[in-house]
Amino acid sequence: MIDIDVSTIDFQKLDGLVPAIIQDADTKQVLMLGFMNMAALQETIKRQKVVFWSRTKQRLWEKGEESGNTLTPTGISLDCDNDSLLISATPAGPTCHTGAISCFEA
Amino acid sequence: MIDIDVSTIDFQKLDGLVPAIIQDADTKQVLMLGFMNMAALQETIKRQKVVFWSRTKQRLWEKGEESGNTLTPTGISLDCDNDSLLISATPAGPTCHTGAISCFEA
Repeated sequence: MIDIDVSTIDFQKLDGLVPAIIQDADTKQVLMLGFMNMAALQETIKRQKVVFWSRTKQRLWEKGEESGNTLTPTGISLDCDNDSLLISATPAGPTCHTGAISCFEA
Repeated sequence: MIDIDVSTIDFQKLDGLVPAIIQDADTKQVLMLGFMNMAALQETIKRQKVVFWSRTKQRLWEKGEESGNTLTPTGISLDCDNDSLLISATPAGPTCHTGAISCFEA
């Protein structure tokens, strides 16, 4: 069960958003980067599935809501500036829509 | 010698910036997240040291320019949306201004 005090997070620098890095809890591979607003982070904690604010869809977006390739968070760390999140997670299947393990694979 | 075709990167979604994740090339620990504009990325490639756009200083900022704790990039990957960078790097000393190895340590 992961949790974090959302009141400590600085959402102001980026119009209500913070970048959230998703790192595979086992392999340490960086899987993707998304953005979260406070509601997305609260839903992530509530559902225990990674939920982003989708800038293209302009709504909350649970990663894998269509593909089934969800991300189960195992830890959340805030950086020293309180404006970036590092989330370790266990992926269900490939994270990238291309079928690659990571969105950072060429 | 790392390089990337900067023309492929989408700097528009975030007012000329993209988030850049810095990951230790050896340990795979995520060290920090910063933002780059095109000039910062070009300087990173030219100097072979990680250079960010500092939102607080409002200028290019070579990580470690004062502390000496620079980051030497060993690889740059662009994500599938062309709007986030993952940079593997070899750190000279602790990355965080607190003296911690990573800015994501509590």
